[in-house]
Amino acid sequence: MTTTNESFTIRFSPSGRRATYDHPLSILETARKAGVEITALCSGLGSCGRCRVKVQGDAISPLSQKERELLSEGELDAGCRLACRTIVDGDAAVYVPEISRPRAQQLQLTGREVPVAPSPAVHKVLVELSPPTLSDPRSDLERIDDALRRSDGAPTGEIDAALLGRIGPALREGDWRATLTLDGSELIQMESGDTTDRLYGVAVDLGSTKIAAYLVDLTSGETVETQGTMNPQIAYGEDIATRLSHAVDHADGASQLQHLALDAIKDLIHALCEGNDLSPDEVLEIVVVGNTAMHHIFLGLSTRPLTASPFVPIATRPFRIKARDLGLPATPGAYVTCPPPVAGFVGSDHVAMVLASRLAEKPGTFLGIDIGTNTEISLKRGDAITAVSCASGPAFEGAAICWGMKAAPGAIERVWIEPGTQEVHLSTIDGAEPVGICGSGILDSVAGMVGAGLLNARGHIERDAGGVRIGESSLPEFVLTETPAGRTITVTQTDVERIQMAKGAIRSGIEVLLDAANVTAADLDGIILAGAFGTFIDPLSAIEIGMLPPVPSERITQVGNAAGAGAKEILVSTERRREAEEVARRIDYLELTVYPNYSRFFARALRF
Amino acid sequence: MTTTNESFTIRFSPSGRRATYDHPLSILETARKAGVEITALCSGLGSCGRCRVKVQGDAISPLSQKERELLSEGELDAGCRLACRTIVDGDAAVYVPEISRPRAQQLQLTGREVPVAPSPAVHKVLVELSPPTLSDPRSDLERIDDALRRSDGAPTGEIDAALLGRIGPALREGDWRATLTLDGSELIQMESGDTTDRLYGVAVDLGSTKIAAYLVDLTSGETVETQGTMNPQIAYGEDIATRLSHAVDHADGASQLQHLALDAIKDLIHALCEGNDLSPDEVLEIVVVGNTAMHHIFLGLSTRPLTASPFVPIATRPFRIKARDLGLPATPGAYVTCPPPVAGFVGSDHVAMVLASRLAEKPGTFLGIDIGTNTEISLKRGDAITAVSCASGPAFEGAAICWGMKAAPGAIERVWIEPGTQEVHLSTIDGAEPVGICGSGILDSVAGMVGAGLLNARGHIERDAGGVRIGESSLPEFVLTETPAGRTITVTQTDVERIQMAKGAIRSGIEVLLDAANVTAADLDGIILAGAFGTFIDPLSAIEIGMLPPVPSERITQVGNAAGAGAKEILVSTERRREAEEVARRIDYLELTVYPNYSRFFARALRF
Repeated sequence: MTTTNESFTIRFSPSGRRATYDHPLSILETARKAGVEITALCSGLGSCGRCRVKVQGDAISPLSQKERELLSEGELDAGCRLACRTIVDGDAAVYVPEISRPRAQQLQLTGREVPVAPSPAVHKVLVELSPPTLSDPRSDLERIDDALRRSDGAPTGEIDAALLGRIGPALREGDWRATLTLDGSELIQMESGDTTDRLYGVAVDLGSTKIAAYLVDLTSGETVETQGTMNPQIAYGEDIATRLSHAVDHADGASQLQHLALDAIKDLIHALCEGNDLSPDEVLEIVVVGNTAMHHIFLGLSTRPLTASPFVPIATRPFRIKARDLGLPATPGAYVTCPPPVAGFVGSDHVAMVLASRLAEKPGTFLGIDIGTNTEISLKRGDAITAVSCASGPAFEGAAICWGMKAAPGAIERVWIEPGTQEVHLSTIDGAEPVGICGSGILDSVAGMVGAGLLNARGHIERDAGGVRIGESSLPEFVLTETPAGRTITVTQTDVERIQMAKGAIRSGIEVLLDAANVTAADLDGIILAGAFGTFIDPLSAIEIGMLPPVPSERITQVGNAAGAGAKEILVSTERRREAEEVARRIDYLELTVYPNYSRFFARALRF
Repeated sequence: MTTTNESFTIRFSPSGRRATYDHPLSILETARKAGVEITALCSGLGSCGRCRVKVQGDAISPLSQKERELLSEGELDAGCRLACRTIVDGDAAVYVPEISRPRAQQLQLTGREVPVAPSPAVHKVLVELSPPTLSDPRSDLERIDDALRRSDGAPTGEIDAALLGRIGPALREGDWRATLTLDGSELIQMESGDTTDRLYGVAVDLGSTKIAAYLVDLTSGETVETQGTMNPQIAYGEDIATRLSHAVDHADGASQLQHLALDAIKDLIHALCEGNDLSPDEVLEIVVVGNTAMHHIFLGLSTRPLTASPFVPIATRPFRIKARDLGLPATPGAYVTCPPPVAGFVGSDHVAMVLASRLAEKPGTFLGIDIGTNTEISLKRGDAITAVSCASGPAFEGAAICWGMKAAPGAIERVWIEPGTQEVHLSTIDGAEPVGICGSGILDSVAGMVGAGLLNARGHIERDAGGVRIGESSLPEFVLTETPAGRTITVTQTDVERIQMAKGAIRSGIEVLLDAANVTAADLDGIILAGAFGTFIDPLSAIEIGMLPPVPSERITQVGNAAGAGAKEILVSTERRREAEEVARRIDYLELTVYPNYSRFFARALRF
């Protein structure tokens, strides 16, 4: 590296920012000055290894010892550097991978969606007809069909019952000019005049905790607006098992749960319509994805078989049900489309995630992981896709953790513990005073404890280590921070065990999948992490605690709410819809509990 | 003829009766002694010509002068004789054609139905499945589909929304043995255990006056029970035009009329089910035929276009609507099937009549006539079927006739007036004291007046003729009878004019059809008369007044409620259903009012 006093420019991507300097600086410093955020939990000490970037340029410092230690061989081969350890003194281009960007930027997840050419199931046709005369007494529908034969090449197929009364008036009120809405060849709406510029649908991700609804312009394929709400079924149980018990134990239980979900979706659709000057009559299709329990409750399928071994679903086929049969607001003959689930614990949300992440279409060997109370994992290898479902529990959602909380302002979301000193570096959501620990924070904390040697392989907190104290139940706990309000936020032995059980469940699922496919982690071309938790965790922490196998970090992609993105693709494109059904057919469900020696896989996966 | 004193036997068909005699007798006398009824309005005077029979035997009197006068050439060629003029004195076989049998026997109309091999749209399949295990975690529907692939060769297609909640419980309650009901490939019902021996449907003839509903065993094709009721829409108008005005003039008018029809059909279905130990849940399909106004009201199609020229229907295509979308009681996913109408005034009841009478399938040239307030007539010639609709009015139903009444006990139903003496011979329904005249009676009366020279060609009653008196409005009227209660039942000049308008409308329709096809009445291989009135009239009277063209009587067939019979065929057999749709497509509607010189056809048809 030659040092000059000439000025030079650093370009940052993907932000597009650039800044000019005239003396050597670490990339971390140039980024801060340029307003580009790079995660650096250790504040640039070169010890947390989180500030990974890729750099191209002529005047770049050679690899430091720290970098050789903290970066994997694959990362080194790929040109990965630590921003705090890399000095630049000339023009350079710096790429900040998502893994090194803070949460606020990771929230911009819709940018991750792969554009899909719109080919929706519904389309509109404007017909302009001549009125009947004594010498041309064709019926209204014959006139319509003759016009359709010219435009679509085929006449109307079915005609929705709710539409029968509209046909005559729509033609006459519009002076024999009307817009037909067809789902395939079925007439589902008829309006006077020309409404062909308005083509909308709603995609719904019916989660057990949250429900997200997306209003989509089916002409452009673009999301007009997103609305979310808590799943009101939570009143009958935070977790699915409790809700299913309610459905089974009470005569109207299943119907209650169904109507809570339907009412919530109804409200979301109304909110989306009101905010965008739409009548609910203009919602032409609704696509709903969810886990198998949500799917069954939503459709009114019996959930009893999901409550006991062998936990089989009633149906794993796609359904199209009239929105009015479910009481959802939409155009008179609109359908609700429910892509197929795969198994009792692998739902259509997982299918949608596999679809949106293009997992099935990638060449090579990939893992797709939806982390949640239940974690679904698919291994794609060649043409085969095998899925398992792991009971990972709610620990990653901050539940059942002593200082756990949801991802809200004040939640500790990033933690790094300096080996040797046990000094804790942390950040909270919105930079607020810490009030608790959210999922990514607890994962980071345990990873930090592992890295700092505060946990043994069996997950016991070292009682004599720095920062460790004995808590109320005579069990050791690690102190993360003292809040200004005087509270001491700790990670308890029980917290560690809960995370241990959760990561063990996930890792054993991964290992069984690898074992069944006769491959090793080194054969993985990539791991796709989906869902809120999977998106916000630090993948390096996940590797540190052994939740994920050790793969080079650049092979890990965090894709956000891929289930919602997949639901939108299914809504927008019949090709993608067919692909989703094909994906569901291709996914082969593997029941972990009957896999040979599963308990040994699990026991091994519990170790740190 | 040789006369012997040996005993001989006369066999009557179709009754199967036989009797033995030892001296020569007229066939009319032998029949009376044998208990075989033969119509003979003139009581055996040889002047009414109604007692036509066919006779085979060795000792039969030769043709009398009277027979040569009263029988047509075709009838003579066919071996037709008058029972009162034919003397037998040896073994003989006598066939009494329907035309010569009294009303009571004509009521046995179901015997006229052509047997149809059942091939209903719905079928049941018993599945016996193995319960799921950890190593066979196929979903319920996968198990069902695998079983269906073995029995039906194909899995379930659509699954009715109302059925989703039944799938799991039906399998488990029946210990994995359940009966699927499929409409085509759509699952419309699922029951625990084996119910394959119960397969029922309902056919409905939705008339503007009466509604008939038939419970049909779809396995055998047999009618289990028939129930009828008055159409409650009559509260909004005796005739269709008044009802359609109500529908157009009142905001909820159409919906009111629709629900009156639906409620009446609902009650009929409940009555049929209760009487036969059936749950409405077991009604697997409902077929409804009716005129186009009834069809549109029933389906909720706008009737406004039917109230003004050019009187086009909204739709002339078949519809299948879920029974629950119409609120009709049936199995959860059952369909209501509505065969297509042809035009504004040619409904699906006419299509059903053409179907049941096999009009479209007969080789040769045939007329099919549905006589009613509106009379639909189809001319079948080669592959072509052309239909017209004639506004014949309610006179034939006894309405707007001075002494008119419906066909009830005491109604004069048969009249014959002896030429020369003007002596009136009449019979009443059930032989009760005469109280009025029903449709067939008024037709006979006018025919008798024509035959007896009491009417001129323009329909004026000869004021000076015997039996004629001057009525209250200074118009002549013919006295039929004095009742014991002292009332004088007459046929007024106005009555004659109403019948004249009605027969003129029908005859002009027939003549236009013949003219358009470039054939004459002599080319007709047959005339089929359907409907209550068409069944009970004396075809010879219809010919006498010029309502029908002069064809040999044996070419006239009276087929009863062929619309109801057609609805049943459509219910029982998908082949017949396709044929009905094909018939509807084949029927070419001809609008009388735009036919060249129609008014001249009509004027000519008015003459007696």
